[in-house]
Amino acid sequence: MRIGELSRRSGVPIPTIKFYMREGLVSQGERTGPNQAQYDEDHLRRIKLVRALVEAGGLSIAAAREVLVLMDSQVTDLGVLGKAQYALTPRKEEPAEPDEAGRWAAGRVEELIDGRGWAVKPTNPARRTLADALAALHRLGQEDFAPILREYAEVAERLAAVEVEAILRRPDPAAMAEAVVVWTAVGDTVLGSLRRLAQEAESARRLGPAEG
Amino acid sequence: MRIGELSRRSGVPIPTIKFYMREGLVSQGERTGPNQAQYDEDHLRRIKLVRALVEAGGLSIAAAREVLVLMDSQVTDLGVLGKAQYALTPRKEEPAEPDEAGRWAAGRVEELIDGRGWAVKPTNPARRTLADALAALHRLGQEDFAPILREYAEVAERLAAVEVEAILRRPDPAAMAEAVVVWTAVGDTVLGSLRRLAQEAESARRLGPAEG
Repeated sequence: MRIGELSRRSGVPIPTIKFYMREGLVSQGERTGPNQAQYDEDHLRRIKLVRALVEAGGLSIAAAREVLVLMDSQVTDLGVLGKAQYALTPRKEEPAEPDEAGRWAAGRVEELIDGRGWAVKPTNPARRTLADALAALHRLGQEDFAPILREYAEVAERLAAVEVEAILRRPDPAAMAEAVVVWTAVGDTVLGSLRRLAQEAESARRLGPAEG
Repeated sequence: MRIGELSRRSGVPIPTIKFYMREGLVSQGERTGPNQAQYDEDHLRRIKLVRALVEAGGLSIAAAREVLVLMDSQVTDLGVLGKAQYALTPRKEEPAEPDEAGRWAAGRVEELIDGRGWAVKPTNPARRTLADALAALHRLGQEDFAPILREYAEVAERLAAVEVEAILRRPDPAAMAEAVVVWTAVGDTVLGSLRRLAQEAESARRLGPAEG
């Protein structure tokens, strides 16, 4: 198909498709003339995937590229699932010297993982992301977050059981990797939106509907 | 205190504090000399709050500013809680004409909200964010996400009950607004990290620990 049809069927404007190609997220089409190229169903699927990661999942172009390179390189191996998931976790460099809140939070993360009996590698970047978030709450004295954290951990465990079950039902590692990538990125957005809707509903139930 | 102490106690580098002031996220200190200013505990708390929103919550400077302006303007009124939460929801402009996936997803969101009996205003931006995410999954044929979506909705309801309960225990609307803002932004990060940790643990349980 031509780029116009690719745009129409993916819902992505032509300049954005060209941008994705320049950024290496989508491969070039097959040249059929000086100003013309042909694209196939693989291009279409890839553009939908990029759109899902960048628009619905809120990933940066750099993060999307890192994830897609992983997916392209080693989808015959189940180890790619973990690597793809790590690439989808926001990371920060370690501070030179963690402050009191940082040390406290790192300890809480270890306790939580041990307490639930989770087998999680020391290299999983979500340890650090979680510790940073807990440190921020601690610095602001939001200490009553602790019981809510326990609820979150229980809920995460319950969701992980359903999610991993669904992923493993996929026919091959490539399909599993795509589902991991899409669900991890888009799943954050889905869960965040549902939390906001449920919070408004719960507030209305407790306080009556808000005005304005 | 001087800016050096403000930096030490908040863990935020001096150039970043100056950047926050230029961007209007933190008010200027009281000038005590040509190159000197004094800051108080309110400045310190505000810098910790900005750090939590921008670093741990992943908000843009513009989104953080919008939220903080709301918090500053009307913290005597409980209506600010809903407005602050709306300001913390990623939004996009409506497309000129939604495609088939977009229309399907909008219908699913209405069904879900009605099905759970949630009282949610038509203006809640999370409706649209959720619909965009579901449309992306639909375009990629990830149809088996539907049962997982039900789990997510149940879990969101359970978390909202605990969260709203904790918020309403705060002594005054200003403290409630701060908790809403911090927990909404940082809570997304906490839940996202826990999901990733739990997914790795569940995969290890099902498949044995991954190599590498």
